[in-house]
Amino acid sequence: MEEITSISNLKIKEAVKLQQKKYRIQTGLFLLEGYKPIYEAHLENVQIEAVYALKENITEFEFVKDKIVVVTEAILKKISTTQSAPEAIAVAKQKTITLEEIQGKKRIAILENIKDAGNLGTLIRSAAAFSIDVLLLCGDTIDIYNPKVVRSAVGGLFKIPVIKTEIKEVKRIFPNYNFIAAVVNHKNTTLPQDIDYTKPFVIMLGSEADGLSSDAVNIANTLTTIPIAQSTESLNLSVAGSILFYISTSKTI
Amino acid sequence: MEEITSISNLKIKEAVKLQQKKYRIQTGLFLLEGYKPIYEAHLENVQIEAVYALKENITEFEFVKDKIVVVTEAILKKISTTQSAPEAIAVAKQKTITLEEIQGKKRIAILENIKDAGNLGTLIRSAAAFSIDVLLLCGDTIDIYNPKVVRSAVGGLFKIPVIKTEIKEVKRIFPNYNFIAAVVNHKNTTLPQDIDYTKPFVIMLGSEADGLSSDAVNIANTLTTIPIAQSTESLNLSVAGSILFYISTSKTI
Repeated sequence: MEEITSISNLKIKEAVKLQQKKYRIQTGLFLLEGYKPIYEAHLENVQIEAVYALKENITEFEFVKDKIVVVTEAILKKISTTQSAPEAIAVAKQKTITLEEIQGKKRIAILENIKDAGNLGTLIRSAAAFSIDVLLLCGDTIDIYNPKVVRSAVGGLFKIPVIKTEIKEVKRIFPNYNFIAAVVNHKNTTLPQDIDYTKPFVIMLGSEADGLSSDAVNIANTLTTIPIAQSTESLNLSVAGSILFYISTSKTI
Repeated sequence: MEEITSISNLKIKEAVKLQQKKYRIQTGLFLLEGYKPIYEAHLENVQIEAVYALKENITEFEFVKDKIVVVTEAILKKISTTQSAPEAIAVAKQKTITLEEIQGKKRIAILENIKDAGNLGTLIRSAAAFSIDVLLLCGDTIDIYNPKVVRSAVGGLFKIPVIKTEIKEVKRIFPNYNFIAAVVNHKNTTLPQDIDYTKPFVIMLGSEADGLSSDAVNIANTLTTIPIAQSTESLNLSVAGSILFYISTSKTI
């Protein structure tokens, strides 16, 4: 079994670089921090390249034992993006899927310009829980392999295909789907529970600060708003999206 | 107008101490960081004791002008709990309400043993948005004047009464309410959308890790679960709670 004790080892340096988006894109790799995400990724057939673990924890990683590299706590701290380093960190391969591969999927969600990692992670988790078939990231959305997104998604990331694309492209490939735009302060909106979810749909969510772009709203077939008390201002984005996902499920499944 | 330039000024030291729960309890005060929370607290009649602001920003705080204390950026950084100090920080007085004062309220929620500040803040925001009348914090729940809770609640904190109490006490005062326990992996649960919310109710939510205590489950009249896809594990707590709050509203209001 390989053992690395130097923080300046080339492999360790490469792993540390994966904290940055630029290197994740360049290499197609990302970090999994801690036993649970590593195990879940393995169960969902994510390809694991290396597992950096403390000697005392390697027995937990029997399922990827030929990938284990024994390291020191200082090395784990260096690779980790959290304050307290986990028992192990894996370098894994990103899954890439194209829009063409999801033909036939009937329950689609688009997230446009979402920059908050916690919100994106929670939306991925809820989308998986509420049987959304595929999540499309459009506009200037942060990358799903951001370590904070991976953490907030709590395993959901590997249970639902996520594709980076553009809204126009989605409309081109799924022209007959019901494009549902989640909006605030619009006229002629339909209550979420009054929408027909038996027809294939694309639920579109924008950022908490700015909402959906006008391009997105313009291509929508249905506008929807979750009604809130007058004196209050808005909902957390992951809450609003999760409510729409849940209602679409509870009405169809 | 008072001006403070020394970081070791007694008032500044007192404000810094409010980052700690112990001092918040001792003094009955808490911090509001940034223009928006200060303004919202003011609108909701929260008593503001002092507003520490940079000289260039004081015109924004006309509504509390006799409370303004001009300070330096170094002082704001010292008081602030965020990485980038806001334009102003206020010291405000906590509102204290008793269970007796909420007699007649028909839509109650209990949060038991919630330790995640982000989840608590988001639940407060959703509860206000979905017309829950009062939030009760039971067991070992973090305090609502924790700066991270105040931030995540985005003004919701001042729009809904929040009381620290015990579940038994709630049952004693509201014996005829429908106590609804949100549970996972239980038999004999009712779907959230099949519950009658026209009768006064108490929705009970436990922590994401452990769920509700057995005491809480035992006093419940109704057990409910939000159904999720089999291969997935759980929902974010603030998502689950917000879905229940929304459904209770959409069925009655």
